Amino acid sequence: MEKSYFDFFDARELRREYPLGEAFLAKFSRISRDALWQEQNDRFKKLLARAWRMRFYQKLWGRAGIEPGDIRSLLDIEKLPTFGKAELSESIAEAPPFGSYLGLDSYPPGEAPPFIMHTTSGTTGTPQPLFFGPRGREIQNLLLARAYLFQGLQQGDVVHSVYGHGLINGGHFVREAVTHWTQAVFMSAGTGVETRSVRQVEILRDFRATVIVGFADYIKKLAEVARELGLEPGRDLPVRMICGHLGRESREHMSALWGGAKLYDWYGVGDTGTIASEGPDQDGLYLMEDAQYVEFLDVDSGQPVAEGESGDLVVTTLYKDDLYPLIRFNTHDVSALSTGSSSLGLNLKRMRGFLGRSDNMVKLRGINIFPQALGPILSEVPGFTGEFICEVTRDSQHREDMLIRVESSESPALEAVKNLLRAKLGVEIQVELCAPNSLSHATGLESRQKPIRLIDKRF
Amino acid sequence: MEKSYFDFFDARELRREYPLGEAFLAKFSRISRDALWQEQNDRFKKLLARAWRMRFYQKLWGRAGIEPGDIRSLLDIEKLPTFGKAELSESIAEAPPFGSYLGLDSYPPGEAPPFIMHTTSGTTGTPQPLFFGPRGREIQNLLLARAYLFQGLQQGDVVHSVYGHGLINGGHFVREAVTHWTQAVFMSAGTGVETRSVRQVEILRDFRATVIVGFADYIKKLAEVARELGLEPGRDLPVRMICGHLGRESREHMSALWGGAKLYDWYGVGDTGTIASEGPDQDGLYLMEDAQYVEFLDVDSGQPVAEGESGDLVVTTLYKDDLYPLIRFNTHDVSALSTGSSSLGLNLKRMRGFLGRSDNMVKLRGINIFPQALGPILSEVPGFTGEFICEVTRDSQHREDMLIRVESSESPALEAVKNLLRAKLGVEIQVELCAPNSLSHATGLESRQKPIRLIDKRF
Repeated sequence: MEKSYFDFFDARELRREYPLGEAFLAKFSRISRDALWQEQNDRFKKLLARAWRMRFYQKLWGRAGIEPGDIRSLLDIEKLPTFGKAELSESIAEAPPFGSYLGLDSYPPGEAPPFIMHTTSGTTGTPQPLFFGPRGREIQNLLLARAYLFQGLQQGDVVHSVYGHGLINGGHFVREAVTHWTQAVFMSAGTGVETRSVRQVEILRDFRATVIVGFADYIKKLAEVARELGLEPGRDLPVRMICGHLGRESREHMSALWGGAKLYDWYGVGDTGTIASEGPDQDGLYLMEDAQYVEFLDVDSGQPVAEGESGDLVVTTLYKDDLYPLIRFNTHDVSALSTGSSSLGLNLKRMRGFLGRSDNMVKLRGINIFPQALGPILSEVPGFTGEFICEVTRDSQHREDMLIRVESSESPALEAVKNLLRAKLGVEIQVELCAPNSLSHATGLESRQKPIRLIDKRF
Repeated sequence: MEKSYFDFFDARELRREYPLGEAFLAKFSRISRDALWQEQNDRFKKLLARAWRMRFYQKLWGRAGIEPGDIRSLLDIEKLPTFGKAELSESIAEAPPFGSYLGLDSYPPGEAPPFIMHTTSGTTGTPQPLFFGPRGREIQNLLLARAYLFQGLQQGDVVHSVYGHGLINGGHFVREAVTHWTQAVFMSAGTGVETRSVRQVEILRDFRATVIVGFADYIKKLAEVARELGLEPGRDLPVRMICGHLGRESREHMSALWGGAKLYDWYGVGDTGTIASEGPDQDGLYLMEDAQYVEFLDVDSGQPVAEGESGDLVVTTLYKDDLYPLIRFNTHDVSALSTGSSSLGLNLKRMRGFLGRSDNMVKLRGINIFPQALGPILSEVPGFTGEFICEVTRDSQHREDMLIRVESSESPALEAVKNLLRAKLGVEIQVELCAPNSLSHATGLESRQKPIRLIDKRF
């Protein structure tokens, strides 16, 4: 009899290894940092054994002159090189169509598990294939369910998801997390092209959604559409909680749009699953340290930053020990550890949310600007619709300049907007004011999971 | 510890109850009709017990004067009333938002399983909620995997799906079927708005898809897009098998478009899952009789038709014994039993494919016309792009008329097209010839799972 997906994991065992709900709180309020390190190290060694059986890591580490005996524990992890999208693309070019990073070659012939394939959303380039073995997939699903339960998701909640589907991992992943590992009802509405915005609002109303999950930009848009339909969030739409990706988002503004709903941030990428999640204290994102080993490295030097300083988030995903193992994967997302102790008494480190992408970062006169992080600043512009797009150019003297196109339903003075940006960012930026809805074609607000905020004309 | 999805079924047990692959062939080449009837009857009794605990069936059957003692076995099933979308809508209106047909009330408090919710695609009206308990969902998934394996799906195949996502069940269901119960790789491309058609062709090429699954109209369109990109199906795109919903589709035409790929039909609706599937003999669709009890009833009288005559397909889904049980559900899809014996030697009845929808049927001068079934006839029109839409009207004398708008890239004589339709259908139909791509907005070819083929202006 051929094996199926379900033959490759034991759901009860996964819950013991990676507790969620009350068991998660119980474990991490009691565990010592030493015991946690030991658990990380045990998982790391298992992961390392898988990686050494793969051409992908043999090559990556061989080029850096590393031999198996060099890495004995997590203490040695900094000896290993980091890698990112470039190495994955190279891997696919060498072994199309799936690349050697999939890791089927780490199993004896005929013994590899079946795999789930999706892609990233391709915010910063071509979508990249993502692979999951059944065990890795279900732990990833469980960890997101852990985050939602931590934030307050309950039996009886109706969760409306605006994550996109198609080949993209997001929508499928979030759907599996909620349907497989929680008692909530899940509605996979998807992006605005999968389910029109007006219809999304009707669904929110008809099925009495209590939770919305997804990216902030489109969730804000839905509140506007609701009001255009005469529905007042809070009164007519009982949404009490929004679990998304907030970054530097203005929480007061977004919460007010949704009638006072509580907002919770979480962070992860398609390759790794949930890395950190806000809890009920809304005081930093708790690192899921039993599942992820996180480092922050200086964007330029690649060296560890001082605690609390911002840098590239580099992650080793301790649970992905079946297929596509990730050891020192550079997300190129910038964040930083939070300092101080947790008000919840959990022995987990915390981090700030997503601050921007280092490979989308624009340096103007020595100042780092993250286009995705400009929305909260622009929300001070009268009539700002939430839509904007940056264009960066380089002239023959290598001087870089940035132009921001900003949608506004009013007519603010151009100089006032430029002054606002100069005051907040410390550098001069060109501004063009645009009519409402004129930019959505360029940003893909309704058709993409994450809108495009940067057009890079430097190359 | 709260229960999760996986606590409500045992994957090995499901495979014993509903074998797939070689075990499916082995079981149904040996089983006697008596033994199969006994298995159906045992499952029916379990289903009946669940249904009697639900307000939905208590009311439906109570109105018909049925009492529990009246139905002792499958032999009594014709005493029960059939039901359809109207009763489901009424159930939602009475017990919003999920309706009493969900069946949570058949469990003691706190013991109901979590449920998965999706909707139909809404081809003939408002999307209708569909509900699945974990056990019912996974058997449904398994049965579609059974159909694909029966048709020749193998380990190593790469399956490209153009079923839609969002709230619609189709794409999610098919993805689960392949990823949970086969060893093939699955690519959830979705409709043309989820993944643009040009990108779909690139994906087919880059990941070397060997199988396409979905509805025929869009799959045909993808072959055209491939050729526009200079890619020849069969030579540049190694698709060897298309498993979809063919109905009266011209197989020769579609197979030629895809470089000689083999075509396989299967039939089912969102509520029921797979009802019947073609096998490698391509000689009728084998009814999955261990999972579905199928009747064909006269569209007007509701009485059983003679064997081989066409009628409404009414189904009792024997495996959905956890949530949303279906007993005598009228799909309003028209088909008929095939007669003669199976060349594969399987002791399963066979049916013809989807012939049309009785609630979308147009009667002109006493002749039944199914708009969805007109594509194959129109494929004889020179330059026919595959796109068409019918409009039916009724004048003050209650005389009904139909106009077909047909896309053609050439300029066929209008009279010749009208003569073709008169010859094939036996009735006069008005025709309007349209330029290529002028109808896709009305039919939703790229944005919907199933295009719209009828605009009903009779009411």
